[in-house]
Order: sequence, then structure tokens, then C-alpha cells
Amino acid sequence: MARYLLRLGYHGGTFRGFAPNDGVPTVGGSLRSALETVLRHEVPIVCAGRTDAGVHALDQAVHFDTDVPVDTGALQRSVNGLCKPHIVVSEVSRVADDFDARFSCVGRTYRYRVLNRRLPDPFRGDVTWRIADPLDVVAMNEAGACLLGTHDFSSFCRRQFAESEVEKSRVRDLRSVEWSAMPGDEVHLVIAASSFCQQMVRSITGLCVDVGLGRVPVDRVPAILAARDRTAVPRVAPPHGLFLERVDYL
Amino acid sequence: MARYLLRLGYHGGTFRGFAPNDGVPTVGGSLRSALETVLRHEVPIVCAGRTDAGVHALDQAVHFDTDVPVDTGALQRSVNGLCKPHIVVSEVSRVADDFDARFSCVGRTYRYRVLNRRLPDPFRGDVTWRIADPLDVVAMNEAGACLLGTHDFSSFCRRQFAESEVEKSRVRDLRSVEWSAMPGDEVHLVIAASSFCQQMVRSITGLCVDVGLGRVPVDRVPAILAARDRTAVPRVAPPHGLFLERVDYL
Repeated sequence: MARYLLRLGYHGGTFRGFAPNDGVPTVGGSLRSALETVLRHEVPIVCAGRTDAGVHALDQAVHFDTDVPVDTGALQRSVNGLCKPHIVVSEVSRVADDFDARFSCVGRTYRYRVLNRRLPDPFRGDVTWRIADPLDVVAMNEAGACLLGTHDFSSFCRRQFAESEVEKSRVRDLRSVEWSAMPGDEVHLVIAASSFCQQMVRSITGLCVDVGLGRVPVDRVPAILAARDRTAVPRVAPPHGLFLERVDYL
Repeated sequence: MARYLLRLGYHGGTFRGFAPNDGVPTVGGSLRSALETVLRHEVPIVCAGRTDAGVHALDQAVHFDTDVPVDTGALQRSVNGLCKPHIVVSEVSRVADDFDARFSCVGRTYRYRVLNRRLPDPFRGDVTWRIADPLDVVAMNEAGACLLGTHDFSSFCRRQFAESEVEKSRVRDLRSVEWSAMPGDEVHLVIAASSFCQQMVRSITGLCVDVGLGRVPVDRVPAILAARDRTAVPRVAPPHGLFLERVDYL
């Protein structure tokens, strides 16, 4: 048995999320099916972060095992040929048998792209969330700073069937939250933690945008965090502005 | 009767070109249908440059006439609501009755985006032409320079049913042709003339890319131009890398 790591990017717009799910197009399902076509056996896969429907990835990581001899370059080309055009594998490498794309991952970085202008853009509608009114980026960073550190993020997490005791916990360590006005008309959030719970980035984005619009005063943010109540956050940002940007391993 | 000018951008990927054509989705057809819904009468439209199927526009111009009183801001919002998300009108303005989006236009500028890297990009497949091998941008500019000025561009033009004596002529004045390596991994052509014939930019792009790959020596370019023969150009670049970037009026 040998274990391999794939690094890949994908446009989430045509998929119903990452997790393989019979009968619906998913990133993991497409990838798994391509690997099974090439390797001719069942190929369970494990990823660093299960992105939701519509969410994109610039550099996702996935591992799988096989007993079949693998030419990594040929495997990459075959999988890319089968998965194009919305999934692109950028690297295939052999890793240690105890490497785990999910549990060895020590950091996840997401980017959220807000298009801050009155008019839609025909080329960026599928990769940005358009906010027509001007945003106060300083206030958005103040809101983000209230969330830094280790907290119970229940106010920002979707309830789901827990798979393990670890997943039941909503305690996460938020390492960085930074909003930047980009050259042009976009405002980006870059946010990093060892891990996030489901919809956490989109909930934080939604709250910060409401602060940036003056709809939520920044001094209400600590109380929203302390509430540990999903309904305390007025809205969740849509998935199509969100990118899994980087996953880190030691 | 009053004449109005629309400026608009569109993603060409979902349209079969600009020209209205019953039964197929076209940019002009969608725009005309939206205008007819708003104004409640037939609305023939005239554009600055009829882009081919799959070609994008950043700033196309269109004029139309109406006897209905028009609130330009309200018209813009209504048309954008009806045409979203792939067509966006950025401006609506009243113009003189003798203004003509096509015949008053004194310059057209196109941009062609080449993605010059080995791997595809899941986010740019619909807006770039990927060339995996390295391109010699200096040689591409030498090839482009051979075409500058006023020439019969029959070697670079698709034969079509001529609509007028002017259109039968393949003589055009090419004012600028410039290839640039952009920050990152793209190589762009920006090309301007008073007007272009059909597939002219894509034919010039195809030839320059073949020069940049070393497949066609640059000293063969003058002979290809002089041949006035469509078959002298080895290939036409695909439409999805091409953008109508600007149209100029005096």
C-alpha cells in the first residue's frame, strides 16, 4: 500500500459541494471517479476541508491509498483529462503512510471576495458577492478583531449531525482575520484557523459586511460571539464568493 | 423620435454571437428583447462591432430609437434586471439623431488573453486560450509589427456574404498591435484599428502565437499578408480568449 497526496483547485459553481454523494455532481465524486477509472479499484478519498456547495478552492489537498504502481505525472494528466475543465490537479506526490490530508492539516486559510460596486460584473458574478453600497473596511477589521483567538463559535456555525466528539465542539482558534480593499473594486477577507466549522467563514463574512454597511454596530459583535446562538448572526454570505486558499502541513 | 446609446459588457460564453437570430441565444437578441419588454414596441438595435459566438465585450456600444419617454436610469436598471447575469449595461445616454453606433465609431480596440502555462486554470478556462509551451513575446511583437498600417487583410479574414461594397473590401488600417507579458502567467494582445473584418483579430492572434512558439518564422509573416489568401494563416485562435475592449467615438 502506498499513500498519495493530490493538490487541486476547482470552480465550485458546477458542484454540489465536495463530499461524494451518489447522483449529484460533487468535487470529491468527480475526483474519486477519475481515480477509480485510472487505478481500476475503489478509491476512498480524504480531503483537508470539505467545502460546501458552490465554494471554490485554489489549493485543496486530498489523500488516497493504492497498491497499484503509480507514475505521478501520468496520473495527474489522466485525472486532469477526466475532470476538466472545473477541477485541476496541480500536484501528485507520494506521502508517508501515516500522513492524513484532514488530521495532519495544521492550518486552513480562506479568502472571501466581495465586489463592492453598484453594477454587477458579467465576468465576476460567479466568484464574488456583490455589495452595492460602500463598505467601511476599518469597521470590518474591528469586527473581525473581536473574534480573534480561541472561542466557542456556535453563533457562526451551522448545526449538523456530529460525526465525532471533536466535531461536536464549536471551539476554534481564529488566528487571523483581515479585510483589505484590493486595487480595483473588490474587498477581500483572508481568514485563517487550524480548522473551521461549517459555514463559519461565510457567517463571519456576513456579519462583518453588515458592520461595514453600518447595519450592525461593531460593539455588538462581542455579544453576538458570546451568545453562542446561530440566530444572533443576521445573515450568512453566499457560497460563490468563498475560496479555500491554502491548507498547511508541518 | 429620440436616439439612445447603451454601453455594455457581456460574457460571450453563453451566447451564439451578437447578431439577433431567432431561436438561438444571442447578445443582441437578449438586449433587444429586454428593450422591447420595457418600451413595448419593436426595437431594432445597431452595435459598434458584431462579436462572434463566444467572444466577450468589456465595453460594447449599441444605439436604438424610441418615441417613448425614457428615464435612462430606470431603463438601465430594467434592462440589467432582464439580461442578468451575463450582460451588464453600464450606461444609457441620449445621443444626437445622426449618431450611429456602427458608422460613427472611429476606433475599435480588442484584447486577446493567452494563458501561458502548462496547467489549465479552473477559473480562467472560459476567458483565456491556454498555450502550454513558452511564448517568445519579442518575436510575437515582431510578427505584429509586420502587419501595422493599411493593407488588404484577406489572409486574415473569413469570407462572408458581403452586405455592401465597403464590406467586400478587406483593406483595413491596423493602428497598433502590442503583445505584453502580464504580471502572473498571461500574455495579452491589445490591437486597434478603425475597424476589423470577421475573425481578423483571432487570425492575427493565431499567427502571432505560432510565431511565438517557433512554428512559423517571423520573416514569413510579410509573405502571408501579401498572399491575400485565407489558407496562408495556419490557425485561428479560439473565440473565448477575445474581448472587445473599447469602441471610440469623436
